[in-house]
Amino acid sequence: MTWTLQNDFVNNETVADNGNRFLIGNGYMGIRGTLEEHGKEQLAAVNLAGIFDKVGDGWREPLNAPNPLHTVLSVGGETLALPEKQPISHTQGLDYRHGIFFRKTTWAVGGGEVTVDSQRIAHMGRYHLILHRYRVTASAPMRLEITADIEDDIWELHGPHYSETAYEIQDNTILCSAKVQNGKDRVAVGRSCTLEGAEASYAERAKGLCFQVNLEAGKCVTLVSISAVCTTADSCSPEEKVVELLQEADYDTLFASHKDAWEKIWEAGEVELEGDDLARDTLNYSLYHLNSIAPRHADNLSIPARGLSGQTYKGAVFWDSEMFILDYFLFTQPEVARSMVRYRIDTLPGALEKAKQYGWQGAFYAWESQEGGFDGCSDYNVTDVFTGRPMRTFFKDKQVHISSAVARAIMQYVLVTGDKKLLAQGGARTVLECARFYYSLLVGYASSDRWEIHDVIGPDEYHERVNNNAYTNRMALATIRWALDGAKLLRESDPKAYKNFCAQTGAEELLPKLKKAAEKLYVPVPNEKGVIEQFDGYFSLEDADLAEVRGRLLDAKEYWGGAYGVASQTQVIKQADVVTMLEFFHNDYSVETLKANWDYYAPRTEHGSSLSACMYALLSCRCGDAKDAYPFFMKSAQADWLGGGKQWAGLVYIGGTHPAAAGGAWKVLAQGFGGLEVENGVPVVKPCLPEGWKKVTLKCCVHGKWYRLELTQEKGKIEEL
Amino acid sequence: MTWTLQNDFVNNETVADNGNRFLIGNGYMGIRGTLEEHGKEQLAAVNLAGIFDKVGDGWREPLNAPNPLHTVLSVGGETLALPEKQPISHTQGLDYRHGIFFRKTTWAVGGGEVTVDSQRIAHMGRYHLILHRYRVTASAPMRLEITADIEDDIWELHGPHYSETAYEIQDNTILCSAKVQNGKDRVAVGRSCTLEGAEASYAERAKGLCFQVNLEAGKCVTLVSISAVCTTADSCSPEEKVVELLQEADYDTLFASHKDAWEKIWEAGEVELEGDDLARDTLNYSLYHLNSIAPRHADNLSIPARGLSGQTYKGAVFWDSEMFILDYFLFTQPEVARSMVRYRIDTLPGALEKAKQYGWQGAFYAWESQEGGFDGCSDYNVTDVFTGRPMRTFFKDKQVHISSAVARAIMQYVLVTGDKKLLAQGGARTVLECARFYYSLLVGYASSDRWEIHDVIGPDEYHERVNNNAYTNRMALATIRWALDGAKLLRESDPKAYKNFCAQTGAEELLPKLKKAAEKLYVPVPNEKGVIEQFDGYFSLEDADLAEVRGRLLDAKEYWGGAYGVASQTQVIKQADVVTMLEFFHNDYSVETLKANWDYYAPRTEHGSSLSACMYALLSCRCGDAKDAYPFFMKSAQADWLGGGKQWAGLVYIGGTHPAAAGGAWKVLAQGFGGLEVENGVPVVKPCLPEGWKKVTLKCCVHGKWYRLELTQEKGKIEEL
Repeated sequence: MTWTLQNDFVNNETVADNGNRFLIGNGYMGIRGTLEEHGKEQLAAVNLAGIFDKVGDGWREPLNAPNPLHTVLSVGGETLALPEKQPISHTQGLDYRHGIFFRKTTWAVGGGEVTVDSQRIAHMGRYHLILHRYRVTASAPMRLEITADIEDDIWELHGPHYSETAYEIQDNTILCSAKVQNGKDRVAVGRSCTLEGAEASYAERAKGLCFQVNLEAGKCVTLVSISAVCTTADSCSPEEKVVELLQEADYDTLFASHKDAWEKIWEAGEVELEGDDLARDTLNYSLYHLNSIAPRHADNLSIPARGLSGQTYKGAVFWDSEMFILDYFLFTQPEVARSMVRYRIDTLPGALEKAKQYGWQGAFYAWESQEGGFDGCSDYNVTDVFTGRPMRTFFKDKQVHISSAVARAIMQYVLVTGDKKLLAQGGARTVLECARFYYSLLVGYASSDRWEIHDVIGPDEYHERVNNNAYTNRMALATIRWALDGAKLLRESDPKAYKNFCAQTGAEELLPKLKKAAEKLYVPVPNEKGVIEQFDGYFSLEDADLAEVRGRLLDAKEYWGGAYGVASQTQVIKQADVVTMLEFFHNDYSVETLKANWDYYAPRTEHGSSLSACMYALLSCRCGDAKDAYPFFMKSAQADWLGGGKQWAGLVYIGGTHPAAAGGAWKVLAQGFGGLEVENGVPVVKPCLPEGWKKVTLKCCVHGKWYRLELTQEKGKIEEL
Repeated sequence: MTWTLQNDFVNNETVADNGNRFLIGNGYMGIRGTLEEHGKEQLAAVNLAGIFDKVGDGWREPLNAPNPLHTVLSVGGETLALPEKQPISHTQGLDYRHGIFFRKTTWAVGGGEVTVDSQRIAHMGRYHLILHRYRVTASAPMRLEITADIEDDIWELHGPHYSETAYEIQDNTILCSAKVQNGKDRVAVGRSCTLEGAEASYAERAKGLCFQVNLEAGKCVTLVSISAVCTTADSCSPEEKVVELLQEADYDTLFASHKDAWEKIWEAGEVELEGDDLARDTLNYSLYHLNSIAPRHADNLSIPARGLSGQTYKGAVFWDSEMFILDYFLFTQPEVARSMVRYRIDTLPGALEKAKQYGWQGAFYAWESQEGGFDGCSDYNVTDVFTGRPMRTFFKDKQVHISSAVARAIMQYVLVTGDKKLLAQGGARTVLECARFYYSLLVGYASSDRWEIHDVIGPDEYHERVNNNAYTNRMALATIRWALDGAKLLRESDPKAYKNFCAQTGAEELLPKLKKAAEKLYVPVPNEKGVIEQFDGYFSLEDADLAEVRGRLLDAKEYWGGAYGVASQTQVIKQADVVTMLEFFHNDYSVETLKANWDYYAPRTEHGSSLSACMYALLSCRCGDAKDAYPFFMKSAQADWLGGGKQWAGLVYIGGTHPAAAGGAWKVLAQGFGGLEVENGVPVVKPCLPEGWKKVTLKCCVHGKWYRLELTQEKGKIEEL
C-alpha cells in the first residue's frame, strides 16, 4: 500500500476540504492541510488542544496559534500563490504512514519555471515542534523573495481571541507572543529559519523575515524552519520554553525520530487486509486521523468531535469519544484510552455541578465538554435560516445519555485492560455518580409501578423532548447496573478503597435504591413486528418518505430538527438511535429482532451525522450480513478520505474531520466483521467478512497481553504475542 | 341610557369590525352586522350554532346559512351599495336592548335622493326566524329595482361546505335548499317577501326575486321579509319545516313578541349603574352579546369562543364558557347555565375517548369542543409567517386544564343553583372522570414523595410543554377535591344514585386514591417575595421588557409563542395565568400574596387574549384596589364595543366577538366590585366600587330564589324578591 493521499488541483471549492483531508497533528496540535501561502480565507490554522477562550457572547472555543508555516514566494515582484496564480502543475498530499504533509507546485514565471517542493510534520513525541522544509527550484536564473513569518491574522470562528501580539526577531528566529483577550493566557510561537543552498540577504519584517535570493538556473534553495508552540496551559513562561525548545532542535534528527514514532504506532495500530485495497487504505487513513489527534502528550485529555481540524463544535469532547473512538485505543494503545477515560474522571466536578444547576443529582456530563468539564454547549445551538434568530435547542439540557457514555467508557476500560485500579482511582465513583444522575431523573406515574425517563433527546437529535427514548432508557439501565458492578468489583478487589468510596459517596444508601431502579426502569420492548419504538409516540408520527421530507426543505441550510423542522413531525431520523442501542446490547436480543429494527429504521435514517453509518454496519454484522454492512462501513472509513459531507446545521458551520466515523470504521472492522469481544479476560473473534476479503490481520492488547488476530472467511485465529 | 350603538360611516377597514359590533342573534343563529348589499367580501354571514362540516384537510367548522337578507337596490341601472357608491349620509347600528339591527343610508341619484331605511331581528323565542324590513324613500320620481334573494355564495373560512344548492320560488317566497358536501346534512332557508306601499312588478331570478317599482316623489316602498332557517340538525325535513314556519308567520306580532322576550331577559339580566354611563352602557352591551348567543333553543348546547360571529375558532367551545361566561348565566338565567353544563355532561363520551387516544384515563375534554365533544383543535393551529408552514402546536394535547374547567362548572352550578339532582344526572360522574384524568397524569420522581404534573400548557399559551404550571396543578387539585365532594354530596342526597354511580365508575376504588393524590399533589408556593412561579424554570427565563420583546418582532403577524416566538424564552406571557389561579382560589392566599403576584405579572403580560384583562381586574378587587381594577374592567367591557382587537395568530384569522370578555366584565362587576359569593345557599356581597360609582343594582338567582343586590360605596344591600 502507498500510504499516500493526494490531490492535484486546488481551487476555492476544495481548499476547505483539503484542509481536513491533509491534516497533520500530534494530539497537541492539528495543522490544517492548507498551503504555505494560505491565510485565514483558506482556513489555514494551527489548532491547539485543551486551551479555550470565549469572546463576549460568542461561543467558547479552542485557540488557533499564530501560524509559523506561513511562507510566501515571489519572483520579480509577482507573488506565486494558489489558487490565484495558476500553476503548470500542482500536487499536494499526505504521507499518512508518517504524518507528513507535502506539496509540489510549478509555475511559469520570469521566462522560466519555478517549483516549490515542501513538507511538514507536527512532531510525534516532541509535541510542541513543527518541522517545515520549503525548497524552491528554478529553471532559469531568477531573483526570489521568500517571506517567512508567523501570521497572527488567523482564522477564528468566534474570535478575535488575541488582544495583542508582540514580535521579536533574533537572528534567524522569529518569536511571537500572543496575549489572549481573557487576560490570563498567552500563546508563544517561535520559528527558526535556515536558508540552505544559496546565498541570501534577508530583511526583517513586522511579523518575520524576508529572504532575497538570486537563484541560478537548475539550482535550488531550501528554507528549513523549525517552529515551536507553547501556551500558558503548558508552561508559566511559554516564550522562554519556545526559545529553549528551538535551541536544541535539529531537523534531521527530529524528522527521523518522528518517523520512528509513527512506525511504532503502526506496529500495533495498523490493520492489514488482503483482497480489498480501497477498504484497507481508507481504514488505515482513518486510523491515521485518530492517531494524529490522540492526546499522547497529556494523561487526562480526550478527543474533540472534529479532532484538531478547527474550532468547529467548540473543540469540545462529545459522546463520540467514548462510544465511537475509545475502543480503537482501548485495544491498540491503552495508554491513550486511559487518558481519555481519566479526562472524564477528572472532570467529574464539572458534571456534578452541571447536574446541580439543573436540579438533578449525581453527574450530568457536559454535552460539549471543554476543560474542567465545562459545558461549551449553548442553549441556542442552531440559527434559524429564515429569521436569522438563534433557535432554542436542547442538546445541553436534554441529551442526558452523555453520562451513560462516560460510565460505559470506564467499565469498558476495566473490561478490556483488566486494570481494576482505575475503579479506586475515581472510576467507581464516577460511574456511581452517573447512576445517581439517572436515578434522579426517574419518574413514575402515580397509577403505574414502572419508572420512566421523560423529556430527553436521544442520539437522533431531530426529535426533541421525547419520553422513554429506548437508547437513553437502556443506557441508563446499563449505567445503574455498571454502578452496582463497579461497586462490587471495587469491594472485592480493594476493600480499603471501597470503604473510602462509600464514605465519599454514601453508596451504601444509594446502592439498594439502584437495585430497585434496575428492576423498575422501563425499557421499550419490541412490538408484534419485533420493532422497538424509538420513543413514546414515534410510531404515530407521519411515516414520510425520506426523499419526500428532503424535498420539503425550503432552504438547503435549514435545520431538519427542532420544533418545526421538516423531520420533526415525521419518522425520519437524523442517525442511528434504536440501532445504536441494539448494537451495544446486541447480546440481549434475538437476531430476528436486530434485523427487524435494522430493516425498519434504515430507510427512515437521514444519516445526517457521521456517527450513523458505522452503527448500521455493526448491526448488520450482528445479523451475519456483511454485505449490508459493507457500504455503511465504507461510508465511515471514507468520511474524511472523500471529503465533502454535511457542512452546515442551520447557519452553523460544522465542517472538519470525523474521528467518530474513523473510530466507528475500526469498530466495524474489528467488532463487526471480526466479532472481537473480550470474554474472561481474553479476546475472542467470530469473523463475518465481506465477500472478496481474503485475510484481515490486526493486533490487540487485552488485559496487558498482546495478540495477533487473523481473520479469514473461514475462521478467526488468535495468537498471543 | 340609549341602548344604542351606531356608526356613521362605512369603508373597507371598518366593515369587518362592524360585522361583529352590530351582530344580532338568538343562540340558534348569529347574523353579522353587515349591510343588505354586502356579500362574502364584506364577511356577511348567518352563522349557525351546533352544526359542523369539514372539507378535505381544512378545519372542521360550523356552517353559515345561505343569506336571506341579501337585498340590492338599484336606480336607473345604478347599484346603490356601500362603500362603492358614496352616500350623502349613512348610519348603521344596533338597538341592543332588543337585538335590532338598523341602517339608514341616503344617496344622491337620478336627480334626487334615495334613502334606504331598514331593520332586522333574529327572533328571540322563534329561533328559526329572521325579520327584515327594508324601506326605500325617494325625493323625486324614480324607477327602482330591488333584488331580494337568498345568497348561497357565502363567506366561509374552510369551505366550500355546500356541494349543491337548489332554489324554488313560489309566489313571493324563495326557498333554497343547500346540500352539505358531507352528504349527510342540508340547510334550508326560506324568504317570504311582501312589497308594501307601492305597485310593483316582479320577476324571478336564479336566487330570488327582482321587484320593479315606479316610486313617486316623497313616497316610500317597503320590502318586508320573513325568513326561516332550518337544518337537518333540527329536522329530518328542514325544507318542509321552513315552509311551515313561514306560513304562520306575521311580522308585527313576531316583532312585538321578540321585543317582549328581550325585555324579559333584561328584567333579570340588566345591570343598573349610577355614576358611570360609559361603564353602564358597555357592560350592558356586553351582556347583550351574551344573551344574543345564549343557547336557549336547546337544552345541552354551550357558547363558542367567538360566539356566533363567524367560523373563527371553528365555532368551538373552549374553557372560556365555563371559566368566564358561565357565572353570568348561573346567577341570572340558570336554565341557560344548565344547558351549558349539560353540554359538557352529555359530551363526556367524547372526553373519555380523547383521554384514551392519548393514553390517559378519565375525561380529557376537547380543547375546541364541537358537537359530541369532538375536538376540532388541530395539531397545527398556527401558520409560520416566515415559511408558510403549519406549526406544530400543543393546545389540543397539552392544555389539560380544560377538564378542570368542566368540573368547576358542574360544582359551581350545584353551588349556585342548589340543584343537586344534576349530580345524579351525570354531574358527579363527569367530575369524577375529570379527576381520574388528572390522577392518570400525576408523576413522581423516584427520589421524591410528591406528585407533579409535567408537560402541559397553562393559560399563558406562549410557553409550551412546561412542568408544574401553577394554574394547572391547582385546578387539578381542585378537581380531585370536587370529585371527592361531589361523590359525598351524591351519597348523602341520593344513596340509590350513588350506588349506580359507584357501579358505573368504580368510584370506591378510585376515591381513596384521589384522597392520597389530594395530599401529595404539588402546587407551586409563593417564593420569599410572595410570588408564585408560573411553572418550573419560569423565573430563569430572560426577564425582558414587554415593549422590547414586541420590538423583536420581524413581522406583525408572527406568533409570539411556540418554540421560537419572541416571548417563548422570556418571562413575557400572553395572558393572566398565575393571576387567574389566584383569582379562583383567592380565599386560600393572603392579600399580600395576591398583590405581590399582581405586581409581578402585570408588567409581564401582553394581554394577547381577551381573557386576560378581567382576571387582573378581579384580582385587583380581591386586593381592595378598585382603581387598578377599573381600566382592566373597562378593557373587558369594551372588547366588542370598541372593536379592533387582535385579529391574527400567526396567519390564522381570530377576529370576531369576545363573549369571554363580556362574561368576564360581568364577573368583575358582580364578583369583583360587588364581591358576590354564595355562602350557605344565599348570596353575600362585599362592595369595592370604583371612584365615582354611586350605585350598582343587579339581580341574581341563588338556590332558586331571586335577589336584588344594591351596591354603593358604603355598603351592599341584598333584598330577596
